Amino acid sequence: MNRPSATLDQPSSVALRQDPLSGRWVLIAEQRAARPQGFVVTSQTRPGTLCPFCRGHEAETPTSLASYPAAEESPGQVPDWLVRVVPNKYPAVGSHEVIIESPRHVVSLAELTDDELHWTFIAYRDRLRALASQDDIAYGQVFKNVGPSAGASLEHVHSQLIGLPIVPSGVQRELDHFRQHAQGAGRCLLCELIGNEQADGTRVVEQSGSCLAWCPYASRFPFEVWLAPRQHLTGFEQSSLEVIGDAAMLARRVLARLEACQPKVNYNYYLHTSPLRPRPGDDFHWHLEILPRLTRTAGFEWATEMHINPVAPETAANLLGERGA
Amino acid sequence: MNRPSATLDQPSSVALRQDPLSGRWVLIAEQRAARPQGFVVTSQTRPGTLCPFCRGHEAETPTSLASYPAAEESPGQVPDWLVRVVPNKYPAVGSHEVIIESPRHVVSLAELTDDELHWTFIAYRDRLRALASQDDIAYGQVFKNVGPSAGASLEHVHSQLIGLPIVPSGVQRELDHFRQHAQGAGRCLLCELIGNEQADGTRVVEQSGSCLAWCPYASRFPFEVWLAPRQHLTGFEQSSLEVIGDAAMLARRVLARLEACQPKVNYNYYLHTSPLRPRPGDDFHWHLEILPRLTRTAGFEWATEMHINPVAPETAANLLGERGA
Repeated sequence: MNRPSATLDQPSSVALRQDPLSGRWVLIAEQRAARPQGFVVTSQTRPGTLCPFCRGHEAETPTSLASYPAAEESPGQVPDWLVRVVPNKYPAVGSHEVIIESPRHVVSLAELTDDELHWTFIAYRDRLRALASQDDIAYGQVFKNVGPSAGASLEHVHSQLIGLPIVPSGVQRELDHFRQHAQGAGRCLLCELIGNEQADGTRVVEQSGSCLAWCPYASRFPFEVWLAPRQHLTGFEQSSLEVIGDAAMLARRVLARLEACQPKVNYNYYLHTSPLRPRPGDDFHWHLEILPRLTRTAGFEWATEMHINPVAPETAANLLGERGA
Repeated sequence: MNRPSATLDQPSSVALRQDPLSGRWVLIAEQRAARPQGFVVTSQTRPGTLCPFCRGHEAETPTSLASYPAAEESPGQVPDWLVRVVPNKYPAVGSHEVIIESPRHVVSLAELTDDELHWTFIAYRDRLRALASQDDIAYGQVFKNVGPSAGASLEHVHSQLIGLPIVPSGVQRELDHFRQHAQGAGRCLLCELIGNEQADGTRVVEQSGSCLAWCPYASRFPFEVWLAPRQHLTGFEQSSLEVIGDAAMLARRVLARLEACQPKVNYNYYLHTSPLRPRPGDDFHWHLEILPRLTRTAGFEWATEMHINPVAPETAANLLGERGA
């Protein structure tokens, strides 16, 4: 089995391109066509018996970049671990890491133990900090795919982190709105929005110490939930252990509520956090967006960027609120 | 069977909402949950024998808004037709029409006869013109879903048209870039781009009289193709019969090429055309975007708006060019 040599080099066949009409960025990554099942519409996750992410199969992945609880790893010498970060064997772009969130073959974040959950969110923080120290990285994107409808190619619980040399348009648009709002209203757009959601209450799913989970006013998907610190925090990797711990526990409870409403639901989640370079001052406020994949995206949505959501967020918050984790 | 009464009224439970962070619009449409199979991940298209779009089953759809070749229709009195426009029985928003593109149970636009194809594109023009005459419509979105991966709930060949009271962000962003380019460079962004693509040639799929089909430089999807008139034309509905005819024939040939490369491919296409109200002067240039659905959209794409495309557009154009229709 070949291992990627230097995982942080830009492979020569990967190209970043920006569409002049929309401003969207695209990654043209032709070597991805060599990825197993990488070009099949109905992708299947591999059966657990062959899972390269399970404990005992560490030789099937590259040597780890980090391991938790902290321990050095070398080929043939793998200490016990709860969370393990390895380079992606089929990188979409030069910097592409996989965060394996448990040595056990479980599927959803809701199934993690307290310790696994803790180290998973610490790994997000540490790996974002590692990207922040690199001159060529403008943004670090943490994301998770659970289930085939959410694009997962392996079912063993994991997240991914991609380091990008540009700030993607999905983040840049939010940053522009944060800046406009700060200039006009003199305060953070999301601080204000969180205050309004707490006061109103109809879309709140749960509050946990420093963090709030709510169904956003313009939810694109049925049971979409956002989660953020209630205090103003620009970058996830700058958050205190208390905030990171509250966010982790709240994310797990929200996902347990979601799975009680929609058993075996497929979902994505991702962090939107401050760009790493150039730092946009204090203008961003990090948040986690959870997208259950219960509906299909069709021509109308691709044409307009406008989703048709058959479940109002007030209805979703009500249903999720009834399902205590 | 209940028929929608006034199809152009806004149903009370449909709400337009704009996300303050991204600027994206969302349609909250709770009555859509009553739609058959409207909330199932693996939707199945109905078998042909029960198809409400086939000739002889006209009573299963509302009375037509238009019929081609032109003929009046009344309940129980359905003249022969090749293309038939009916109100959507499960509207996402007040103005939602279905364009049934053949009386025969075929699936892809590539299977239409010359006459069916001609009347289909004439129907796009006429129905956009009908929307343009309404005070409360800002944009008319024509789109097509083919196959379950593309979100089709019925397999019989058809397109849809939704009239919107706002200009969606997917179109507004393009309009902003058209305007910026016109102010800076003194000419239309897409006129310039088409000229460059023709001169370069590596991404051109086919030229047909007044229209060009090419794989865009920042293609999001494998085998993505865009099609546009080579002369500057702002709104599709203002195009001449010659341009509309060339676009129809070229779209059919491009889809036949695509299906020769990727048999039974699922795809979406949609028109991006000038907003109807307020008219943005001469700043837009209409185009048709064809999106084959061979890859899945996962957390990274939702987070960043950045697609990972394993087939470079130059490779795709080369493969499509080899498959003459």
